[in-house]
Amino acid sequence: MSSGRSSLPTLQALPQGDDHLREDCTASRHAYQGRFLQIRQDDVRLPDGSTAFREYIVHPGAVMVVPLLDDGRLVMERQYRYPTHRAYLEFPAGKLDAGEPGIACGVRELFEETGFQAAEWAYAGELHNAIAYSDERIEIWFARGLVAGERQLDAGEFLDVFVATQDELSGWIADGTVTDAKTLIALLWLQQWRAGRWALTWKPASAWDDGR
Amino acid sequence: MSSGRSSLPTLQALPQGDDHLREDCTASRHAYQGRFLQIRQDDVRLPDGSTAFREYIVHPGAVMVVPLLDDGRLVMERQYRYPTHRAYLEFPAGKLDAGEPGIACGVRELFEETGFQAAEWAYAGELHNAIAYSDERIEIWFARGLVAGERQLDAGEFLDVFVATQDELSGWIADGTVTDAKTLIALLWLQQWRAGRWALTWKPASAWDDGR
Repeated sequence: MSSGRSSLPTLQALPQGDDHLREDCTASRHAYQGRFLQIRQDDVRLPDGSTAFREYIVHPGAVMVVPLLDDGRLVMERQYRYPTHRAYLEFPAGKLDAGEPGIACGVRELFEETGFQAAEWAYAGELHNAIAYSDERIEIWFARGLVAGERQLDAGEFLDVFVATQDELSGWIADGTVTDAKTLIALLWLQQWRAGRWALTWKPASAWDDGR
Repeated sequence: MSSGRSSLPTLQALPQGDDHLREDCTASRHAYQGRFLQIRQDDVRLPDGSTAFREYIVHPGAVMVVPLLDDGRLVMERQYRYPTHRAYLEFPAGKLDAGEPGIACGVRELFEETGFQAAEWAYAGELHNAIAYSDERIEIWFARGLVAGERQLDAGEFLDVFVATQDELSGWIADGTVTDAKTLIALLWLQQWRAGRWALTWKPASAWDDGR
């Protein structure tokens, strides 16, 4: 045992690249096709030449939108999420349709769920929310210059739309009221952007259409 | 259409409770049992009396540990995550064994993956990382007073351990190098805690054993 002022390497001192960690597919099969979920089972070769089994969700990807009112407040939703049998306070989000660009999905979900259209959009980044067992990635978009209209919920979709301040959101995370991962990450981005540490580039949705 | 200075309600002005959003199970069946993943399909009654179908992963839950060296630097890992075919920079984490308290899982995973034992632990909170299709929750623990030993990787487990500063982590998220959701949320907690906005209570692991 040695002390906590450790001799661990920095990232820069580690081997470059992922070759010493990489798992190569030797066989892949479709294991489950539900109405929404799809699972694959793969055999892989590990870095030491041994073999292992991997099982994972194949997901189309999703988009989260962080909508900012002109007064700086946030547009949020309360929605029942059946797997854990409770409602969550979260930002608008939805799955990508096949081949749909992230910005198109963001514009569509924001309008359908809240009725808002946004003059300007900013792409913040992406997150991977279940790296052990799903290939899902969620694009993080910000929207501002909001104009309210009538929301167009899908049949069978029930959700509340409300406004909150960033301080309220922070308090709800600290006290355990808000636990949705993408929504926590939205607060991280809000804080870093408003503190001038991370930059956002704002453009009309149409200017994002050709990708980022 | 009305202006963006909206007439949306605050959370406090919304109906109390979730009754107007709740989905009640009318039938539940086991749909898939893989080696790691399990899926259920349920029929539910929606708030308007109509019916819908829900399909979701049943997950045992997991723990993330954010290990702090005495000099304030962070112990992180680089690990290949097969579903997206690349390595991630992330904090140590692992699934709960059946009936295992979160603290026990945190102590075990930290030691197995990094070799570190910690004098003090703090429970930060929980996150739900895939609320649309999984019941997974991840407990967020901080560990400090680290003493290094020999890690005990499971057979077939390959991962790099390295140290990073909080500024490095922040930069890697800003530039898209780090996208693992739990690790982004760890930075949120680190910032809020070090800024004195969110509190952590530190105790030896043994003092957490009776739950939180």
